[in-house]
Amino acid sequence: MTTSHTPDSLVREFISLLVSRDLSTAAAMVTNDFEYDNGPMGKTFGPEAIEKTLSGFFGMCTGIDWVILRQTSSGTLESGTVLNERDDRIEIHGRWTTLPVAGVFEIRDGKISLWRDYFDKQTIIEVMTPPAG
Amino acid sequence: MTTSHTPDSLVREFISLLVSRDLSTAAAMVTNDFEYDNGPMGKTFGPEAIEKTLSGFFGMCTGIDWVILRQTSSGTLESGTVLNERDDRIEIHGRWTTLPVAGVFEIRDGKISLWRDYFDKQTIIEVMTPPAG
Repeated sequence: MTTSHTPDSLVREFISLLVSRDLSTAAAMVTNDFEYDNGPMGKTFGPEAIEKTLSGFFGMCTGIDWVILRQTSSGTLESGTVLNERDDRIEIHGRWTTLPVAGVFEIRDGKISLWRDYFDKQTIIEVMTPPAG
Repeated sequence: MTTSHTPDSLVREFISLLVSRDLSTAAAMVTNDFEYDNGPMGKTFGPEAIEKTLSGFFGMCTGIDWVILRQTSSGTLESGTVLNERDDRIEIHGRWTTLPVAGVFEIRDGKISLWRDYFDKQTIIEVMTPPAG
């Protein structure tokens, strides 16, 4: 992490690392008491939450292309808030689909202390379910 | 609407009007081509979308208390973006429940041109279904 980050650029780098499947570098960007609230899917905690929650899901994806549609922020790297709207595009079961997501991030002392995503659970379940036949 | 609004305060006033069930004044704050994207529940358009989508739902609610937990914005009243995280608390079927929601708002020429909410559809359906017995 460079010192030139803003809350906005910190979250953009974090998302970019996830998209490139670099979960360990992404995990180094979160606080020890990091909360990953995956909305209707439940919560996990600490830097290990990244690997724990995403490695299985990413293992199912043959392509990952999360696009930040809108992102606004307030505060500083010491204490900041970043909200975004994303199209989390993934290739799974041989086809690209889009998961519409809104994300909430809290920044504390240059690290991400909260990541909460809002989305429709049924949409995710349908995407993850292999097509019949 | 006073001229002292910012994108942030415009959306706060809009939410406040909805909470006080003043749907007609809220509808006057949106553009003629306003898009109300109620996420997994579908889209409606124009100022009439407010009444159309919310009057039935609000009619089921004996109490409405939407709380903005976090809100960030960018741009100006001429062209701005506001993202928020809310607890949309409602009293329905004799009990208070919370609908966790993330909202996206676009501002154009001093009016709201887009309102998109992200939430879990099943959570809303369960809240709206009368308890058995």
